Amino acid sequence: MFHRAVVVAASLLAAVSRVGALWPLPQSLSEGTSALRLSPGFHITLAPSVAFSAPLDLYEAIGRTQGYLFTDSLGRLVVGRGASDVSAFETAAYLTELQLSLAPGSKVNSITTEAQKPLDERDEAYTLTVPSNGSAATITATSTLGLYRGLTTFGQLWYEYEGTVYAVNTPVEIEDKPAYPYRGLLLDTSRNFFPVSDILRTLDTMSLVKLNEFHWHVVDSQSFPLEIPGYTELAAYGAYGPNMVYSASDVQTIVSYAGARGIDVMVEIDTPGHTAVIADAHPDFVACNQARPWATYANEPPAGQLRFTNSTIATWTAGLFTELAKMFPSSLISTGGDEINMPCYDDDEETQRDLNATGLSFNDALSGFTQQTHAALEAAGKTPVVWEEMVLNYNLTLSNETYVLVWISSEDVKAVADKGFRIIHAASNYFYLDCGGGGWVGDYPAGNSWCEPFKTWQNSYAFDPLANLTSDQYSLVAGGQHNLWTEQSGPSNLDPIVWPRAGASAELFWSGAGGNVTAALPRLHDVSFRMQQRGVRSIALQPLWCALRPDECDLNW
Amino acid sequence: MFHRAVVVAASLLAAVSRVGALWPLPQSLSEGTSALRLSPGFHITLAPSVAFSAPLDLYEAIGRTQGYLFTDSLGRLVVGRGASDVSAFETAAYLTELQLSLAPGSKVNSITTEAQKPLDERDEAYTLTVPSNGSAATITATSTLGLYRGLTTFGQLWYEYEGTVYAVNTPVEIEDKPAYPYRGLLLDTSRNFFPVSDILRTLDTMSLVKLNEFHWHVVDSQSFPLEIPGYTELAAYGAYGPNMVYSASDVQTIVSYAGARGIDVMVEIDTPGHTAVIADAHPDFVACNQARPWATYANEPPAGQLRFTNSTIATWTAGLFTELAKMFPSSLISTGGDEINMPCYDDDEETQRDLNATGLSFNDALSGFTQQTHAALEAAGKTPVVWEEMVLNYNLTLSNETYVLVWISSEDVKAVADKGFRIIHAASNYFYLDCGGGGWVGDYPAGNSWCEPFKTWQNSYAFDPLANLTSDQYSLVAGGQHNLWTEQSGPSNLDPIVWPRAGASAELFWSGAGGNVTAALPRLHDVSFRMQQRGVRSIALQPLWCALRPDECDLNW
Repeated sequence: MFHRAVVVAASLLAAVSRVGALWPLPQSLSEGTSALRLSPGFHITLAPSVAFSAPLDLYEAIGRTQGYLFTDSLGRLVVGRGASDVSAFETAAYLTELQLSLAPGSKVNSITTEAQKPLDERDEAYTLTVPSNGSAATITATSTLGLYRGLTTFGQLWYEYEGTVYAVNTPVEIEDKPAYPYRGLLLDTSRNFFPVSDILRTLDTMSLVKLNEFHWHVVDSQSFPLEIPGYTELAAYGAYGPNMVYSASDVQTIVSYAGARGIDVMVEIDTPGHTAVIADAHPDFVACNQARPWATYANEPPAGQLRFTNSTIATWTAGLFTELAKMFPSSLISTGGDEINMPCYDDDEETQRDLNATGLSFNDALSGFTQQTHAALEAAGKTPVVWEEMVLNYNLTLSNETYVLVWISSEDVKAVADKGFRIIHAASNYFYLDCGGGGWVGDYPAGNSWCEPFKTWQNSYAFDPLANLTSDQYSLVAGGQHNLWTEQSGPSNLDPIVWPRAGASAELFWSGAGGNVTAALPRLHDVSFRMQQRGVRSIALQPLWCALRPDECDLNW
Repeated sequence: MFHRAVVVAASLLAAVSRVGALWPLPQSLSEGTSALRLSPGFHITLAPSVAFSAPLDLYEAIGRTQGYLFTDSLGRLVVGRGASDVSAFETAAYLTELQLSLAPGSKVNSITTEAQKPLDERDEAYTLTVPSNGSAATITATSTLGLYRGLTTFGQLWYEYEGTVYAVNTPVEIEDKPAYPYRGLLLDTSRNFFPVSDILRTLDTMSLVKLNEFHWHVVDSQSFPLEIPGYTELAAYGAYGPNMVYSASDVQTIVSYAGARGIDVMVEIDTPGHTAVIADAHPDFVACNQARPWATYANEPPAGQLRFTNSTIATWTAGLFTELAKMFPSSLISTGGDEINMPCYDDDEETQRDLNATGLSFNDALSGFTQQTHAALEAAGKTPVVWEEMVLNYNLTLSNETYVLVWISSEDVKAVADKGFRIIHAASNYFYLDCGGGGWVGDYPAGNSWCEPFKTWQNSYAFDPLANLTSDQYSLVAGGQHNLWTEQSGPSNLDPIVWPRAGASAELFWSGAGGNVTAALPRLHDVSFRMQQRGVRSIALQPLWCALRPDECDLNW
């Protein structure tokens, strides 16, 4: 079903005028060439049938949208930054009102509630019209989340020149909905820590390009910055420091902030690998803790993996997921499962003793452990998510409801689909933001990164989510995400390494595949400059000379 | 002569303890293992013989150093960030005074004056002693610039833990001077513009690692953000906007700020290529202005090169350099000369008419033009600097005093030396900060950069400045620089793309070649974290787990 959307989007991309600059591109877009001014008295209203029942987060979104309209102050990306638009807009009509309404019979939930629904229940569709004669603009939808997406699109129509806020492409008519329900961004807060404010800013920027899933790889072997009720010793011993912990209150702040912006938070506690840090609080729980040489026992130092064959430890872990499930309202929680190191367990007396005692194979013990943690999540109403090794390297008993994150290579997608699992694209060869910037390993004069080269936005943008799949497997693809592993990232470079590159997957998984980079570039500039206006350090893709002159820096110009 | 310094530094790098963390590493360093506390009443004094004659910028540097000592608040990069140092420092002596003195007979100039001297007259040597018993520390030198370098080193000795500022490696004895007199950083402010504040912050960071030459590639074909008296039309027409111009007053601010930090500003106006923007004010001065396809007429759009064969234009250009020379007190000014495009001139009627009229070959006309601009500089007491094509692609009459920037490849160094020119290393295969981050060309789905891959700090650090040269050519090597061309950079990513990577060339050209990345990494972390404490967005090289545990993330650990 998504494939059809792809074709529509592709033809749109070729046909769309350069006047407007929406990102991601709507599924259906009709633009005029008339200017329209925003009245100083411009306001956003809810239809009477909704006004009394609308949730507070929708009212807040309305206020935020109105604020951005007057504070973005984005000059249009043309020579003169809007000076040449004056003659058009100085006689244009004023827009005074944008009316939001829900279709009759729509249930009125908060944006947050809608955003946190299971993937196949999310409703992000909306219709937006902006007449050129000053009549009220309208957004209609069947959910508050749809209204929110429409507000985001509306906000991208406007530029500012010497105190006038105006659009140049009215009348606008948009019918829109995402090609894929899962459009994510992974942030690793374990290798290096990020203050809450960095995460909130990232959520704001995600929402600007309609990303809807914050995949929070919150802990790993290097540090455990998450305070989990009943398991607070993990952060107490395993965080980088007392000022580098996400408290339960911080989590609530992040989850709420995300929800109000149409974003679900999918937390991940990677198990049984990537858990050395648990040894800081529970030395007995971890095999091969800080064993040397680390390269034998782990893909990254410090080595250390949960002794999952021990039933006490397995039960403790399942209990941890039960607590985690209480903190995160999302329907999705990831139990990880990547990069399990065999020498670590082979050399671990306790693990081998457990296996001998139970007579279980390693595979079956792992299957039992995973079933136990997943059962804990399912009991809490959650759907488990795992990394690809859980289904490709082992023969585990996993529900086919499980979502599988493909990370090693996009070549592995087909094998996951053949096993009947639902897929989230996160492949290193397309969506790893950290590649190509040098390596983090010490004592390594070559210094290159393991996943060379740098993944350009063009590379990600040209990804085909359905490649190698049969048409009956298409519906297994839930969407995809860019990933920021932070061995060499921190607050200093968070924005520049993520933006605007992650916009490439945002459009790919919203608008569908088939777009071309030439048509996309001017719009990606536009949203990147808008990010900058909002205080996000999104980087330049070209000299400003090029950004102001679409096409003129194309190779064929 | 530099080669001998190299060998000394290399043995030091192997032997140095992990206690101290200076960057760049001094030529000679003896460290103890005693702690020393900074007294709250700590002060820096000038020897009586200097105090009455010392320049204001030295007094300011003293104040700044004192300020950083108490505000850096850098926790030592060990587990616990200094908690384990308490037992050592709580019984340590207090340091109350640092005495600066100049050797008898030294001339007392300002730091600025010393920094702006010709390369072979700069005196940056200093001796620093920090006893462990609380006796006064001392810096002695034969110039204020040497004292300034010593102050910078002194400032890197100190850490903070819960209100105590302390060192862990006293007594310290250092004899230091740079291996090479030229240690630069190039910033291109034409492709994308940088506010003055970004440049000032960059100068501060350069001075922290003892870089001493700001190579300001201020204008190019894309924009002309420099206001030059008598030539103000260039910025008026060619800047990206009225708020994206460096006024004469801005230049003075930048030059003074740099000078006070021991940094010389070498401005570059690239000629005769890279000059399309001049056509905005003087359409007749430029051949092939914005000609298409641009790829035929330039390496980057917009195409356009000065009609240097026209004597009026040549005289105008020489006059521009005369004015430029008044703005920049440095002994060095670059006239550029890279990437001259032949089809542009071949197809230009005016140029061909001039050549026919004079009977000059292209080469000889170019030689005449270059002689004219260089003569203008020499008349103003300046030494010209050019890019490598000026000596490798043409047979021009150039003074052997000319400095030649090698950029295309380090393989070209030998050829430049064989022609007897002095060399500044700036090769793209070692020192280009913009490589490997994707390409700026539009309509280019592959999206990769022309100078793949990313140049890691390890790669730059391992560069041998004397490779392929004969020993009698060693003295031709003035030093080198990292370069930031800004097709894809701007204020958003200035700090993260430059720091701490440019520290690699800072140490290479101060301490000499032969260092190894394993020994360097903990110190590079240290200076990078200190940069962060000073508000510079220097990036993480490793997970914090590794940064706190030197060696433990080495491949062989």
